[in-house]
Amino acid sequence: MSRFLNDRLQKIESYTPGEQPQDKKYIKLNTNESPYPPSEGVIKAITEAEIKDLRLYCDPECKKLKNALAECYNTEPKNIFLSNGSDDILNFSFMAYGQSGAAFPDITYGFYSVFAELYGIETEIIPLKEDFTIDIGRFCGQNKLVVIANPNAPTGIELSLDEIEKIVISNPDSIVLIDEAYVDFGGTSCAELTKKYKNLLCVGTFSKSRSMAGARLGFAIASKEIIADLEKIKYSTNPYNINRLTQVAGVKAIEENDYYMDNCKKICDTREYTVKELEALGFEVLPSKANFVFAKRDKISGEKLYLKLKENGVLVRHFTAERIKDFNRITIGSREEMEMFIKTVKEILGEKI
Amino acid sequence: MSRFLNDRLQKIESYTPGEQPQDKKYIKLNTNESPYPPSEGVIKAITEAEIKDLRLYCDPECKKLKNALAECYNTEPKNIFLSNGSDDILNFSFMAYGQSGAAFPDITYGFYSVFAELYGIETEIIPLKEDFTIDIGRFCGQNKLVVIANPNAPTGIELSLDEIEKIVISNPDSIVLIDEAYVDFGGTSCAELTKKYKNLLCVGTFSKSRSMAGARLGFAIASKEIIADLEKIKYSTNPYNINRLTQVAGVKAIEENDYYMDNCKKICDTREYTVKELEALGFEVLPSKANFVFAKRDKISGEKLYLKLKENGVLVRHFTAERIKDFNRITIGSREEMEMFIKTVKEILGEKI
Repeated sequence: MSRFLNDRLQKIESYTPGEQPQDKKYIKLNTNESPYPPSEGVIKAITEAEIKDLRLYCDPECKKLKNALAECYNTEPKNIFLSNGSDDILNFSFMAYGQSGAAFPDITYGFYSVFAELYGIETEIIPLKEDFTIDIGRFCGQNKLVVIANPNAPTGIELSLDEIEKIVISNPDSIVLIDEAYVDFGGTSCAELTKKYKNLLCVGTFSKSRSMAGARLGFAIASKEIIADLEKIKYSTNPYNINRLTQVAGVKAIEENDYYMDNCKKICDTREYTVKELEALGFEVLPSKANFVFAKRDKISGEKLYLKLKENGVLVRHFTAERIKDFNRITIGSREEMEMFIKTVKEILGEKI
Repeated sequence: MSRFLNDRLQKIESYTPGEQPQDKKYIKLNTNESPYPPSEGVIKAITEAEIKDLRLYCDPECKKLKNALAECYNTEPKNIFLSNGSDDILNFSFMAYGQSGAAFPDITYGFYSVFAELYGIETEIIPLKEDFTIDIGRFCGQNKLVVIANPNAPTGIELSLDEIEKIVISNPDSIVLIDEAYVDFGGTSCAELTKKYKNLLCVGTFSKSRSMAGARLGFAIASKEIIADLEKIKYSTNPYNINRLTQVAGVKAIEENDYYMDNCKKICDTREYTVKELEALGFEVLPSKANFVFAKRDKISGEKLYLKLKENGVLVRHFTAERIKDFNRITIGSREEMEMFIKTVKEILGEKI
């Protein structure tokens, strides 16, 4: 750090992303990417002509992409906001709506607390219950920015729409942000509820179910007033934040949505296989509606298993927080990858016990 | 706007980007894009395999791109920061270094004042001199964040390295940010000076000279401590902010740097042609070292000329600020585009006078 950096930023502890090895030597089950490539149409849409047009700025209004998403999510373009990955939307939301504080679970996406710190927002960290479900009652009547990942990460556990609605209704004077990064793997989106509740902000991403983690594309669905807020921040920070090729790819991905939703089904099937195998090996696996499972086993620590797996060419994600240090978060890859993962786990357990 | 938006953001006036018509019916001389496409190597580098890999996150450390830029700018990777367009770096710098206020010229990139407002930073707006040059003396001893575009926009007028050094030396306790978006069109970069001065932050972009406006790629060159500050903010907002294809394109563009520097020479030649023609038509043209010229003419208002040009299929940029409302900023396109522009101006003037 330099001596010029302001005091608040000096103190921040940044987010640590999962490992991104650039050499592809691992079975990579650590950052919840899709094992399937983008659809054929996306691959074909990035033509030489489009690449040549990189000399021109992108459409800052992202009109085509907003139209496509509005149709897909049964809403209007004015109810859609687009960003350079959904982290941007989370960032903007903490900046915009944190003035009365923020509330989120103790075990959730690690970035929420970083954003809160970045903007000096007082936070109420609400512990998950013993069984790692969200303590609904404690999120009611907060009248702070409420941020909930649904399904939650890294647990994979889902809230029902009824439960979300209860939280939204009970916080009429603040924004309830539902981060749906993993909703396409068996969860239910609250997008429709945004028509009814002006304080509900639904956030999605193309990084997981739509195989575009490397393209950076996030979206929000909300009242036109909330969308106008987010646009205002975008136009006050980085108006051209979504590059041309990502916009082209995004439009095509929505046109070919069936391909992606089929992939999600495959991933759900592979998840069921993985859970069954892990349970047969004595693991406790939390009930997941995401493209990952969160699992632990007696007699081998989370860290030890993570390290042994890495040694054997399989990357999973381990977190050091006290409550979850026994677990590992395992992304659901292709069936072949998960068979290899299970085989490797068996070998490790065979060595150990 | 929603009623949930915090007070400071409610009051902000966002930046207004230049028009980005999506129908290509204009000769587009309004947002300082390059008339030349990316190099052959860039076009070939975005292969089907790279597009398929969009399913994977990008390298948040941008190692390859940092290595390439470090070599190109005769420095070390630890002295390079990369971002989703250079606006991100400007944004981060105001966030990080504005605690004692900021100083910039009255006539300059319109985004600086937006960033200052966004972070509630007290600003000292220092008027350009009568001849639109920067008033060096007034930027000395500020001990605030000093932000200067060099060459300046929309004037195109350059500061010498000696003048920059004087400002840097006289502000030892604050950051001097030199925004070099347009430096490759005849200006001189202060990148080398960053080795000598720990308070100098040099900002560049691939949007203009490297034909990648639509790919979003900005960079900073500075002491490793300043770079660490910027990395900290990136990892506290959006760690995966540069997408995979942009990283691939950026590396290739640096490998083929000669192509781009040749394009810059062509653009400088076309600029000379344009200036001569405009002067012959009675325009006053400020001395530009950028890929645009800033010009005005008696007997036709800046706005009128802008509107007439637009009516005739040529887009230039008009600003409404009092001191510069007589001018238009005209991007230097290809020779053919500028001949068409001059022809159109002649027709408009013929009608008018």
